This record gives sequence, C-alpha cells and structure tokens, in this order.
Amino acid sequence: MFQLLRPSRVKTRRGGKRCGNLIQLNSMTFQLHPQLQQDTVFIGKFPLSQVLLMNDCQYPWFILVPQRADIYEIYQLNQQDRMQLQEESCLLAHTLATLYQADKMNVAAIGNSVKQLHLHHLVRYQTDKAWPAPVWGKFPPLAYTAEQLAQQTHKLKTALAGFLGA
Amino acid sequence: MFQLLRPSRVKTRRGGKRCGNLIQLNSMTFQLHPQLQQDTVFIGKFPLSQVLLMNDCQYPWFILVPQRADIYEIYQLNQQDRMQLQEESCLLAHTLATLYQADKMNVAAIGNSVKQLHLHHLVRYQTDKAWPAPVWGKFPPLAYTAEQLAQQTHKLKTALAGFLGA
Repeated sequence: MFQLLRPSRVKTRRGGKRCGNLIQLNSMTFQLHPQLQQDTVFIGKFPLSQVLLMNDCQYPWFILVPQRADIYEIYQLNQQDRMQLQEESCLLAHTLATLYQADKMNVAAIGNSVKQLHLHHLVRYQTDKAWPAPVWGKFPPLAYTAEQLAQQTHKLKTALAGFLGA
Repeated sequence: MFQLLRPSRVKTRRGGKRCGNLIQLNSMTFQLHPQLQQDTVFIGKFPLSQVLLMNDCQYPWFILVPQRADIYEIYQLNQQDRMQLQEESCLLAHTLATLYQADKMNVAAIGNSVKQLHLHHLVRYQTDKAWPAPVWGKFPPLAYTAEQLAQQTHKLKTALAGFLGA
C-alpha cells in the first residue's frame, strides 16, 4: 500500500549501510537528540527514520526521527527524503490506527523545545484524558512499567515486521 | 525546489478542472467543512489543497485542506496525493518561514474536533505568547481587523504567485 523502500541493507565500502541503491541509511553525523533519547524507547529503523516509543503510558505515542543531521523542518530534507518520510509516516500511522483501533491519529512536527526534526504519531480516543485537546503540555508524562514497555515494543515490532531494520 | 504540479488548469469535458494530466483539481463531492469555512479566510488553491488563513491575529497561521471528499487521515490519500500534499505543505512552510522570518514552523494534522483532513502551518517565534507550547487550546482566537486580513492575504498571495490558482 505504501511505497516504502525496504530495509535491504547492503554494506558499502566505507562501512556505512545502504538501502537499495538510493538511501543512505545512517548519516555519518546523525545523532539522536539527548532529550529524545531520554524520553523514548527505541523500536527499530525504517530506511530513513528511527521509530521510537514515547515513554508515556497515557496514550500510544510514537515518534519518527529522520536520520539526517542538522535538519529542523521537513522542507529542509531533499525531495527523495521528503517522499520517503511521508510514506514512512503513513505506514506508521496506518499501522497504529489499525493495531490500536484509534478514533483519530494526530501527526505533528512541532519541535519548539527539541529542534531536531521529529514527527509525533499519536493514537487518540474519544475517551482518552486529553480528548479533544492535543496532548502536548496537557498532562505530565506517566512512564510505562518495564513489562508494559516490553509489551508495547513487541506489539509494534510484530505489526511492522518486514519493514523495520535493526 | 519543491516538485509541485503547476495550476495550469484545463477544463475537462465534464466541466471539472484538471491540473496537467494528472490531478483532478476539484473532487466533485468535496466541500470545505463549515467550521473551517467559519474560522478561516480563503487565500487560493494549490493543485490539491485549498490554502486558508486562520482568523487569529496572535500567530501567522495557515491551513491546507486537500480537496478530497471523506478523507480524515493523510494515509487515506492515494500515493500521488500523499506526495503532492507533502510538496504543497513544504512549499507553504518554506514560504511562510522565509516571509515571516519564523523561529520555528509547526506543521500538524490533528483533526480531533474537525475530522476533515486539514494541515496546520504555524509560524512560531520564541517571543510569541504561547511559546514554547503548541498553540492549540492555549488562547482563544483573536480576529484580525478587516485591514489586517487584507494585508495578510495579499502578502501570502504575492509570495505564492505562480503556484496558486483562483
């Protein structure tokens, strides 16, 4: 359904990883922002973006981070990356909407506090505690238990099997 | 820079409008949601989306609405429309960031209250009244004066000249 490049990783001569012939998997200088590292749990990698689970058990909340250094806005990506990001975002949003039987998906690039480009993907229910307001700044995050984290991670990894790299 | 289809409108035999050979300009059944109609001012049309100005003078706030009926999530669009929407969104965000010298753009598809797919494009400043919080639900909207509305509309229409249809 979505035209996602597959994570068929091929080692390049320089030791980087390539996806097909086109997309450099890891920008050599990309580093996940420390705040995102602190607030999330790593799920896996699409060809362009890292898939992260926000450690807030109040909503199923996932984040895509394109692995490109020094990018703050979607329009700063080159056209191929913009298209790839749209497809990765739609694959994730569609998967989450189905998996969690969402009433609505919220997809947003905000980045006022953490500038590194990251796309929020939130599963929303008419019964969740913030509905119909957006969740940002509404309630302080409530961390998952270790068991819940493992369950959520496993659930999405299974649903995205075949699309996620390591 | 952005691979936008140009609004070279050609009348079709059925009286609809076409952009190039590919994109049907107006879905025959598309109707702008009454709430969006009430809250915004029409600026113009990209090949896929209407460009609207939110009538809230607290922030430069624009909205794209793909002219497709019964679509609530980006992933429900077909692939061509998803790509086109990404390019229209990036063209708008880049134009706004330059025109208003934004500190940050906020781009979001939320739709908890108005389900019809619409993408917010907000120019944010570190000095605006809601910073760094997202604006939704933060402060009630403050309408522009008629003169301010005309100025804002003219400003963006000029900046997007060549990309906007009527």
